[in-house]
Amino acid sequence: MHFTAEQEALTRALGQVARVVAAQNTLPVLAGIQLQAEGDTLRVSATDLTTLLEAEIPVEVREPGVVVIPAATLHDLVHRIPTPAVEFHQADPQGPVTVRYGRNRATLHGFGAERLPAFPVPEGEPKALSLPPTAWAQAPQQLLFACARDDSRPILKGVSLTLGEGRAVLAATDGSRLSQSWFPAPEQLGAPVRAVLPARTVAELARLSAGYERLEVLVTDNLVLARVPGLTLTSRLLDGTFPDYERVIPREYLVTVRVRLADLRGAVERVHVITGRDHTASLRLHHQPGLLEVSASSPEYGQAFEEVECQSEGEAMDILFNPAYFLEALKSLDDGEAMLEFAGIHAAARFRSSAAPGYFHILLPLRQAV
Amino acid sequence: MHFTAEQEALTRALGQVARVVAAQNTLPVLAGIQLQAEGDTLRVSATDLTTLLEAEIPVEVREPGVVVIPAATLHDLVHRIPTPAVEFHQADPQGPVTVRYGRNRATLHGFGAERLPAFPVPEGEPKALSLPPTAWAQAPQQLLFACARDDSRPILKGVSLTLGEGRAVLAATDGSRLSQSWFPAPEQLGAPVRAVLPARTVAELARLSAGYERLEVLVTDNLVLARVPGLTLTSRLLDGTFPDYERVIPREYLVTVRVRLADLRGAVERVHVITGRDHTASLRLHHQPGLLEVSASSPEYGQAFEEVECQSEGEAMDILFNPAYFLEALKSLDDGEAMLEFAGIHAAARFRSSAAPGYFHILLPLRQAV
Repeated sequence: MHFTAEQEALTRALGQVARVVAAQNTLPVLAGIQLQAEGDTLRVSATDLTTLLEAEIPVEVREPGVVVIPAATLHDLVHRIPTPAVEFHQADPQGPVTVRYGRNRATLHGFGAERLPAFPVPEGEPKALSLPPTAWAQAPQQLLFACARDDSRPILKGVSLTLGEGRAVLAATDGSRLSQSWFPAPEQLGAPVRAVLPARTVAELARLSAGYERLEVLVTDNLVLARVPGLTLTSRLLDGTFPDYERVIPREYLVTVRVRLADLRGAVERVHVITGRDHTASLRLHHQPGLLEVSASSPEYGQAFEEVECQSEGEAMDILFNPAYFLEALKSLDDGEAMLEFAGIHAAARFRSSAAPGYFHILLPLRQAV
Repeated sequence: MHFTAEQEALTRALGQVARVVAAQNTLPVLAGIQLQAEGDTLRVSATDLTTLLEAEIPVEVREPGVVVIPAATLHDLVHRIPTPAVEFHQADPQGPVTVRYGRNRATLHGFGAERLPAFPVPEGEPKALSLPPTAWAQAPQQLLFACARDDSRPILKGVSLTLGEGRAVLAATDGSRLSQSWFPAPEQLGAPVRAVLPARTVAELARLSAGYERLEVLVTDNLVLARVPGLTLTSRLLDGTFPDYERVIPREYLVTVRVRLADLRGAVERVHVITGRDHTASLRLHHQPGLLEVSASSPEYGQAFEEVECQSEGEAMDILFNPAYFLEALKSLDDGEAMLEFAGIHAAARFRSSAAPGYFHILLPLRQAV
């Protein structure tokens, strides 16, 4: 293998794919970045077995070939090279790789003849989806926090994507809360398509979408693919059936509260400062017309009590929430006016913001002794 | 205890002293910040037993008193309070503290009747030292990295301060390297004063000095004290005798090399990327008139070889260094032209920069088989 690349383009490509490289892996070669020189192109790839990132840059190839080099060393070296051109040469496919720049040189030990594991090929008819970049960009704030963290139901570690009836719906739930957002997708008018994307993949799509007008995404039976100029993401879909989350969304609400989001969030944050280290402490919301009282109490750490003015409809009620989940629900809303809807002290509550009409969050309250 | 403080002033004072609070302490009360209300002043203090930081702010005191409150909770709460005034009230000296702001309130559990441990009183005649802020501000870059990390010779975990003959000299050494800087101190013309300041204290003095014309420092037989408006630092000195570091500084040099610092640092960094994870790899410097070759080799990770143009005087020579120490030596210099002076392959080398004439670094080379 023998090629010469532009230092800037190679540095950028290495930075783009290095994101999926994990420092510790059961499979050592996954700590590497694969360089494949062919034609007049260098393909730079990395994978964590779930997601594959591939960048392509034009290079001058004298001898085609493939090599895998430890990601950290390769990136750290190339981004520090002060010359415009960098030459890579591997004489023996089992041997070291020599990097030359100007009058200087480094010799690196790669993973010998090892290659990154092959990725599955797409199965089934691909469906195209073209969403505005905000659709993916908002996913970390709106959806990813609601994904399950533990492995008890692996399907809940993903984000559900449903296409059909001219719209795309993204949803995430860990069983006690649900985030949902939807976007117009006029090209999706046929029979619905359902897929579950790993949370990690959605985070990558959010990053990929930055700086582009639209992000083209292809969904097949087993993979999701996305492409921006010079960079391709391929990810496995999660196997299994996503729960029918629609049925946990209440149809009717007894109490509706409109409040300045910043006021309510500030109050909950201050209460959480006092009692947050006590994981048994609940957040108590007491509604009376025009006023929301937020309080929590911990025998070990203390108590806090805040009043927040609001516009409200409905009767007085007392309802308990997990404080951390309640705070995350508020942080998923955009600034402006928040709307909180309560369907009863043991029924799910809905959180929305006037600034993001396509998004809502559903949170189950904690049980209380009646 | 009962007082009302301005939220902004109290937030700033808490932030200033919280720096010395360690998250984990054998003495639980050290995780707290002490609030002492007296006259029309609140004294806000924290200590790690070596350093004591005390901020004072004007407050309205209705009932004097002292309380210690967990630092993280107190700071996190006060900086989130949206009202201009915050009221603190402790009815029972053993009981909780109630914080009121606007219509809201929090009740915190402090450390009961516990107080921060008393600090020693100054002993001996205090000597005043007034240095420009850069003297202290540069200390982290120039001196602190050269302090010993381990406990085998505790005195080397400090920075030596020598006053006399119209100058102040700061020095740090871990036995294999030495950093020294000096500053005019016209008020210091009498018999020399020697003191050893904990590295942690010098780091605090560097922070304290930011934004002030001069930093007034008092040295007594057992303490160092510094004061800026509203904030006082008191620190114990280290016990013991600092080694006579002057004798390791070579009097004469065989080879003098002048080189653009950025060029040499870039070359050493790239070499270190390749071989840095092999802690047995040495950095080899080969000098020949007008050229410095930098190289290193590791059987496991690879080799790197760089050439750096220089202006030099003296014979060709080969000399080995600890790569991490060599890089830290270069990073301690200010940008511009570096001057490297070598007194032989087994003698200490001196590093200086044309931009900082009052500073130099001394590094012992590694032994080599001859």
